[in-house]
Amino acid sequence: EIVAALEAQLGDGPLTGKHILVTSGPTHEPIDPVRYIANRSSGAQGTALAQALTALGAEVTFVTGPADVAPPENVKVVPVQTAQQMLEAVQTALPADAAIFAAAVADWHVQGASDRKLKKSKDGLPTLSFAENPDILATVAQMKTGRPQLVVGFAAETNDVQANATAKRKRKACDWIVANDVSPETGIMGGAENAVHVIDDAGIEDWPRMSKADVATKLAARIAQALAS
Amino acid sequence: EIVAALEAQLGDGPLTGKHILVTSGPTHEPIDPVRYIANRSSGAQGTALAQALTALGAEVTFVTGPADVAPPENVKVVPVQTAQQMLEAVQTALPADAAIFAAAVADWHVQGASDRKLKKSKDGLPTLSFAENPDILATVAQMKTGRPQLVVGFAAETNDVQANATAKRKRKACDWIVANDVSPETGIMGGAENAVHVIDDAGIEDWPRMSKADVATKLAARIAQALAS
Repeated sequence: EIVAALEAQLGDGPLTGKHILVTSGPTHEPIDPVRYIANRSSGAQGTALAQALTALGAEVTFVTGPADVAPPENVKVVPVQTAQQMLEAVQTALPADAAIFAAAVADWHVQGASDRKLKKSKDGLPTLSFAENPDILATVAQMKTGRPQLVVGFAAETNDVQANATAKRKRKACDWIVANDVSPETGIMGGAENAVHVIDDAGIEDWPRMSKADVATKLAARIAQALAS
Repeated sequence: EIVAALEAQLGDGPLTGKHILVTSGPTHEPIDPVRYIANRSSGAQGTALAQALTALGAEVTFVTGPADVAPPENVKVVPVQTAQQMLEAVQTALPADAAIFAAAVADWHVQGASDRKLKKSKDGLPTLSFAENPDILATVAQMKTGRPQLVVGFAAETNDVQANATAKRKRKACDWIVANDVSPETGIMGGAENAVHVIDDAGIEDWPRMSKADVATKLAARIAQALAS
């Protein structure tokens, strides 16, 4: 790893000259000025991946929601809050050789979020109506022109992990899906380890449980290989 | 302040022998295993207040939601996620001489939160129904027996700050309300400063804008005075 980092600094890592976009963290969708809807995501896996790609020489643009972990060094950090802002930041960051969507993006936002704090009404409850967020992964994976050579989605599932993730890959038209089981009992969400399945057109690779740093290193090497071929 | 801390360690601060309960931070109300509803609250003001009370000799129980800032030292920290858990932690922590409710508690939770990740349905959107959370401040302020001598609520408002806070004090039957304007343009939410109004049965005190640490020191002194009288 140290050798790879040195080689990268000397300008001859396997990803030198490649621009890679990584999204990470959750999105926060406002309800009113003091309330929001969020996805649980510490940003740890996305951050580790951006670091591993940088170590292989890639120029990384890191579009991140409000994460728990600090963003990596030596990358261009673009902080966002909402899914809509994340889409815009992604579109601004393109073109890229690869785009890795590790963020946990909210599927919905609150329609007509209030600019005043909602009060308990006499009837007790406010009415929130939801609208679908832009699908950032599908939008980029289905670009007619300028599509990154490699588009990778993540799938955080709690049941039927491989079936849900395989269907997601097809539906979004991305190249790979990195799927994991984030049920509370796995300790993966917010934890230091991850157990992923990498799904591509050749099938499903089941990786053993390992540290998020090791998942990142292994995934970065796989990305380098894909971009080289 | 150093003198006060030393005196407290020597066992003769103005709050020595007093047990004070402080709640702080946001609550997170689950929608499903990966999504939740949250209030924006860094926990900075509650943490500073717990520190200031400890410096005056108080024994502090600190019930905190998932905050951005680290909890204070030398207090009993009780971490919680939801409003219901916070109520239970508060009830377990009583009796107390004073109870200071600085947490930003969600008013609602999602009824029947799913234990599986919700999927986009064919109709596009899931149906979330909300139910009211327990009112922790009112529950404690209106205790028939064992009520803390001093019950202090906080009011984070974005408009009609003093009118809303004065009404809140009456409705909850607490002794004081510490109110502030958390409109985004004030920079108070997540920031280092605060500008509060302290409302009690004598009226409204408008405090100038100062650091959250200074608000905490001034408030702790006011609490010590109230408990001494």
